[in-house]
Amino acid sequence: MMDHISDSTVRRLSNYLRALDELERGREDMVSSKGLAARSGVTPAQVRKDLSYFGSFGRRGLGYSVAPLKTEIRGILGLNKRWQVTLVGAGNIGAALFSYKEFARQGFDIVAVFDSAADRIGEKLGDLVIGPMADFERVCKERGIEIGVIATPAQHAQEIADVMVRAGLRGILNFAPRKLFVPVTVALRMVNMVIELESLSFALAQNEPGRRAGRRFPLGD
Amino acid sequence: MMDHISDSTVRRLSNYLRALDELERGREDMVSSKGLAARSGVTPAQVRKDLSYFGSFGRRGLGYSVAPLKTEIRGILGLNKRWQVTLVGAGNIGAALFSYKEFARQGFDIVAVFDSAADRIGEKLGDLVIGPMADFERVCKERGIEIGVIATPAQHAQEIADVMVRAGLRGILNFAPRKLFVPVTVALRMVNMVIELESLSFALAQNEPGRRAGRRFPLGD
Repeated sequence: MMDHISDSTVRRLSNYLRALDELERGREDMVSSKGLAARSGVTPAQVRKDLSYFGSFGRRGLGYSVAPLKTEIRGILGLNKRWQVTLVGAGNIGAALFSYKEFARQGFDIVAVFDSAADRIGEKLGDLVIGPMADFERVCKERGIEIGVIATPAQHAQEIADVMVRAGLRGILNFAPRKLFVPVTVALRMVNMVIELESLSFALAQNEPGRRAGRRFPLGD
Repeated sequence: MMDHISDSTVRRLSNYLRALDELERGREDMVSSKGLAARSGVTPAQVRKDLSYFGSFGRRGLGYSVAPLKTEIRGILGLNKRWQVTLVGAGNIGAALFSYKEFARQGFDIVAVFDSAADRIGEKLGDLVIGPMADFERVCKERGIEIGVIATPAQHAQEIADVMVRAGLRGILNFAPRKLFVPVTVALRMVNMVIELESLSFALAQNEPGRRAGRRFPLGD
C-alpha cells in the first residue's frame, strides 16, 4: 500500500493537518470535505479521495470529526512520536530554525547543535551548547538522533551530509542552496528559499511592461 | 514561447545557476553538459535539452562557457535587475531572512520591514526601522516595491497577503505554514519548512523497524 502514496499526497495530508489545527483552535468539532478543501486549496473530491484511501474517516452528510481525523493523519505522517533532531550550522538560518516553534509543535525536537566555526563552538543556542563536528557521530549515536538539519553555507553542505550518513542518521532536511547526494536508504528533503524567490522573479520578469514580446529570452550565439 | 516553460524547468535553471556560481568560484571557464548535470542532479541530456530550448549556448565538444551561460540564465530568471522587497514579520524567521546573504547576492534587496506587534515597531532590523502596517501601502508605492515576503504566524498570513495585493505588489513569497489565496495576477510562492519535515517523517515512519506490515495506516471507523 505504501508504495502507491505519492509525495504530493503526503503534502496534501500535511496541508489538511494545518487546516485541522486551525479548526481545532476555532473550536470546530466537525468539518465537511468542502470546508477542508477550501482551507487547503484543493477540491472537495480530492479531499474525499485522499482520506478514503486511508480508511473511512467521514460519515456521509455529517463530514469528518476534527480531532480523530487529526490523530489519524498525524499517525500516517509519522507524527505520533517525537523525533530527535540535530542541527548543523548555528548561523542566522540555523538560529532561526532552532527557535521556530512550529517544529517543536509538530514533534521535532532539536536536541543537539553543531558548527565547524571555532568561534561558535562552546556558545549557546537556547539551552544547548554548540558542539564541534568532531563530537557529531558519538553524540548522534548516544542520543539516538534520527534526523539532521543542514543550515550551513552551500559549500560545506555535502560534506556535512556525508558525516550525517556515516553517523547513521535516517533523514536529512537541507536548507543550504545546493543539491545534495545521499544513499537511497537516507531520506532527503530540501527547503530551497532561493529557488522559490527565483521562480517568483521569473514569473514577474515574464510580465515586465518594458519587456518586448519575441525577445523574452535573449538568445546566445 | 513563455507559456511552455514549466515551473520545473525554471527550478532546474535555478539549480544550474547555483552550479555555475560554484564553478566560477573554482575558477572554471568551461563546463560540459555532463559536469553541469552531475552538480545539478539531472541527466546530461536534460541539461542539453533545457539549454538548447533557450538558444545555443554550447559548442559541440567544447561545452558551455561558464560566465556567459550564467549571464543568460540570470536574464531568463529575471535576475538581471535588482528587486525591491518588503518583509512583513520581524520575528525569528523574518530576522533570519533579513540577514540571509544569499537573497541579496541573487538580487533581492529587502528595503522595508513591517510588523503588527506594537513592541517591535520602531525597533531596528539591520539599518531599517520596523514600520507599522498602517504605513505599508504608502511606503510600497513610494519605493516601487514589487515583492513581499510574509514571515508572520500562520493565522495572520492571509490578511497580510490581502494588504500586499491592495498595495500593488506583484509577487509574494510566503514563509507562513498556511495556504494563501491571491488573485491570479499576483505571483505566489511558498517556502514550507514544516511540510518538508513532515514529508521526511512520513518517509522515516514507513521504514520503522517496529511498524508491522499490513498496519501501516491505522484505519478509522
